[in-house]
Amino acid sequence: MERIDKQFDFIREIDKEKEITRHTFLADSSRRENDAEHAWHMAIMTILLQEYANEEIDVLKTITMLLIHDIVEIDAGDTYAYDEKGKENQAEREEKAAKRIFNMLPEDQAEKMIALWHEFEAQETAEAKFARCMDNIQPMMLNDASNGFAWEENQVKISQILKRNERTAEGSRVLWDYMKHILQKNMDEGHIVKDRELD
Amino acid sequence: MERIDKQFDFIREIDKEKEITRHTFLADSSRRENDAEHAWHMAIMTILLQEYANEEIDVLKTITMLLIHDIVEIDAGDTYAYDEKGKENQAEREEKAAKRIFNMLPEDQAEKMIALWHEFEAQETAEAKFARCMDNIQPMMLNDASNGFAWEENQVKISQILKRNERTAEGSRVLWDYMKHILQKNMDEGHIVKDRELD
Repeated sequence: MERIDKQFDFIREIDKEKEITRHTFLADSSRRENDAEHAWHMAIMTILLQEYANEEIDVLKTITMLLIHDIVEIDAGDTYAYDEKGKENQAEREEKAAKRIFNMLPEDQAEKMIALWHEFEAQETAEAKFARCMDNIQPMMLNDASNGFAWEENQVKISQILKRNERTAEGSRVLWDYMKHILQKNMDEGHIVKDRELD
Repeated sequence: MERIDKQFDFIREIDKEKEITRHTFLADSSRRENDAEHAWHMAIMTILLQEYANEEIDVLKTITMLLIHDIVEIDAGDTYAYDEKGKENQAEREEKAAKRIFNMLPEDQAEKMIALWHEFEAQETAEAKFARCMDNIQPMMLNDASNGFAWEENQVKISQILKRNERTAEGSRVLWDYMKHILQKNMDEGHIVKDRELD
């Protein structure tokens, strides 16, 4: 099989990411968003908000991570942030998916993409930390815009949000502080269950 | 208004791009795709297919162009490639939209985004040419994957496709040659009206 045929096979395969539905609603609450839309939104956010990264980041690398990091969900499905049972075997399911899907690419590109996905998951580099920060902030921004629709639906507690966001400030202290104001507002308005104080 | 508030206002505003429907169907023909999904797909294609650009490109710049170039459609709507009437005042409608939407950003970022959008439209730089090549190739790839659904629906002629793609090879000769094989196959299968030969 030719190199270019492999690349187009992969490009056609990832079209399925447009059908992986997330829990988050669009800003106008009309429907839930999907993984491809989520990735597009975070890529633009990275371009606009890079100035708030704690450490200087390679923007192209960060964006690439964000664009591809949910491709594993084509096989493994979306695991909701507060689904403790689903998270038990999430890593195993996603690792298998990464191998199948990225290996449709020519070997050099498959290796790069798998390495980048692992880098995102490991949360050690400046780029991975900022990418995770985007991945946590984008749904909070949408949940706020849609009057806490997804939070209310799942009766999400502030303690759960804080646990999930334990490391968000490692990507950007400024953005985490900004989001804390938004979380406080949503606690005050009753969209988030206030089972503890924010700070 | 604070810089960061302006940035988040813009980020919330562009959520509407997820509701701009295109004529192209997803690869499995289940529904039409939207602008945000289209942009996400092209950004990944740029990362994977940059090796086929005629001239070396700045990949981050090219991706940024592709991620933002349809934002004007939030106000101006999607103008179908073969809608000659709609195209008459398209430029004017889009220019007005660009001013309103990008100017929600802090001035320095608004200027950069508007300049990048103009650069894409002008089709002069290597990045703009490659971005346009992606913008033309991505829907052809999906139309082919969905057995010519959108071509058949609109009774699209090969002469129209060739006119639209007059400059696609300026971004990448290799990719245009690859797409020509796909177009020929779809002519042979009757998905595209054969009102002339391909070459």
